[in-house]
Amino acid sequence: MDATVGELGEFALIDAITARLGSSAAVLLGPGDDAAIVAAPDGRVVASTDVLVEGRHFRRNWSDARDVGHRAAAANLSDIAAMGAVPTALLVGLATPPDLPASWALEMAEGLREECDLVGASVAGGDVVRSDTLVISVTALGSLEGREPVTRSGAQPGDLVAVAGRLGWAAAGLAVLTRGFRSPRVLVDALRRPAPPYAEGPRAAALGATAMVDVSDGLVSDLGHIAVASGVALRLSSDAFHVPQEFVDTARALNADPMAWLLAGGDDHALAATFPPDVDLPMAWSVVGRVEDGEGLLVDGEPYAGPGGWTSFA
Amino acid sequence: MDATVGELGEFALIDAITARLGSSAAVLLGPGDDAAIVAAPDGRVVASTDVLVEGRHFRRNWSDARDVGHRAAAANLSDIAAMGAVPTALLVGLATPPDLPASWALEMAEGLREECDLVGASVAGGDVVRSDTLVISVTALGSLEGREPVTRSGAQPGDLVAVAGRLGWAAAGLAVLTRGFRSPRVLVDALRRPAPPYAEGPRAAALGATAMVDVSDGLVSDLGHIAVASGVALRLSSDAFHVPQEFVDTARALNADPMAWLLAGGDDHALAATFPPDVDLPMAWSVVGRVEDGEGLLVDGEPYAGPGGWTSFA
Repeated sequence: MDATVGELGEFALIDAITARLGSSAAVLLGPGDDAAIVAAPDGRVVASTDVLVEGRHFRRNWSDARDVGHRAAAANLSDIAAMGAVPTALLVGLATPPDLPASWALEMAEGLREECDLVGASVAGGDVVRSDTLVISVTALGSLEGREPVTRSGAQPGDLVAVAGRLGWAAAGLAVLTRGFRSPRVLVDALRRPAPPYAEGPRAAALGATAMVDVSDGLVSDLGHIAVASGVALRLSSDAFHVPQEFVDTARALNADPMAWLLAGGDDHALAATFPPDVDLPMAWSVVGRVEDGEGLLVDGEPYAGPGGWTSFA
Repeated sequence: MDATVGELGEFALIDAITARLGSSAAVLLGPGDDAAIVAAPDGRVVASTDVLVEGRHFRRNWSDARDVGHRAAAANLSDIAAMGAVPTALLVGLATPPDLPASWALEMAEGLREECDLVGASVAGGDVVRSDTLVISVTALGSLEGREPVTRSGAQPGDLVAVAGRLGWAAAGLAVLTRGFRSPRVLVDALRRPAPPYAEGPRAAALGATAMVDVSDGLVSDLGHIAVASGVALRLSSDAFHVPQEFVDTARALNADPMAWLLAGGDDHALAATFPPDVDLPMAWSVVGRVEDGEGLLVDGEPYAGPGGWTSFA
């Protein structure tokens, strides 16, 4: 389809998008009415909103539409997992220039659907409006399945700090693309399509995780939120992190610090959590530090001095 | 406060906004974690997303920040009411240029809170990001309180068509402002702050409404959705509409058609519904037509020939 979204028109575009979205058991009433209805079996719904802006959170020359859909969904589904919940549905607001190819919007919708399929969720509704800037606003809903939520405020001195999922891969991919390269492909692809360890969120909750966050801004920055909210100090040991060989090679070529990618790189949507010390952690989780009395986040005993986490107004 | 949102920074801005948001009983965990938790007492949540774009849905020289907050909330809360549900919470994504005055963002948040207060809801979470275009994306959540939802597809031949709330006031206000006038104030204010009849949504559901919509694009356009979804014809009678004196006077001054405002004007967020013919309608509802076999929407027996409803890509 070569038409622009402006040529296709709002209602035809919405119909075409909706036809690509699929459905899931938790979505009791999907797109097409004033609102959707989503199951919330334990009487509570977990809800989170993230906004992605072209040029800031994605670039159309770096990522194709399907990748952007995957990323937009992943950023939100991961927030649900970080509460210990299972995602049930997305609502998607698309603000688009009228000259956007309709095919881009449709492929982006397919990316949303494919990412939702990974967790058994689906897109339940949304809105499409005209805007000079391409903005994708996603709200994810989820179910705690009767569990208590894992917030940021429950970390206790003595707890272990552990991470699940990739750290620094998207930052390494961004460094590659920013320098005008297109490989290593595995790093570039990690930026285009994060692979959040969705199932580890509810699993961590079931294992008794005391605090948990989605690593979207960078491990040091996001664990810092746990330190503040819990009123504790988090001590990380850099030895505990495995530095992938691709990082070492690429960092050397780019004259970059691979530990900065690991510790401060965002957008991988790993999960970071604290657990009681006697927990029997599954393989997906790596212990990288400990919770102590005090405040702040220390790496090898010092405040982290490398480049900071990602901030929306930097 | 004279700082811009860029000068204040993402986290300080979020903190300042959050301090203005208040809370409500249904929000079990509010802003500050990876996701919010909202009560969904009957095991279902109603959810709707609307996106407002500066220059398209609001203008900063026509509406102050507080008004924009009211409008952004109202557009979404009204969608929840149109399902027969009671709003419980909003999630708000703000994509903002860094030179936006921080005071604008904070007053907009106060407008959101004030509109939420009208229905006992509150803002449960959100996101703030940088964008060249000012975009406000709002997701509203609500509770059906055990009732069945009132969709667009249940209208039956023989049903009455009735409306609650203001029709055409925002369109008249827009006509006034577009022509460079600032009065009648009551019309301009109607554009700035819609007054949706929120409580009439659940009440209509309890009275047995067979179909219902929020009138956001215009009565003819939005009732047209009921006609299509229900597979029926809706016949409106123009005599049934009360034309306010302000409309008559202003339409004469602007050489406009007041019936076009009533029938095709959007953004008032009235409710339009169909009811079984034996219903005992409360005063807030006015009967304006009937449901018949057939298809489409007729005004005085003819397809509506006036200016069409609002469309996002027009």
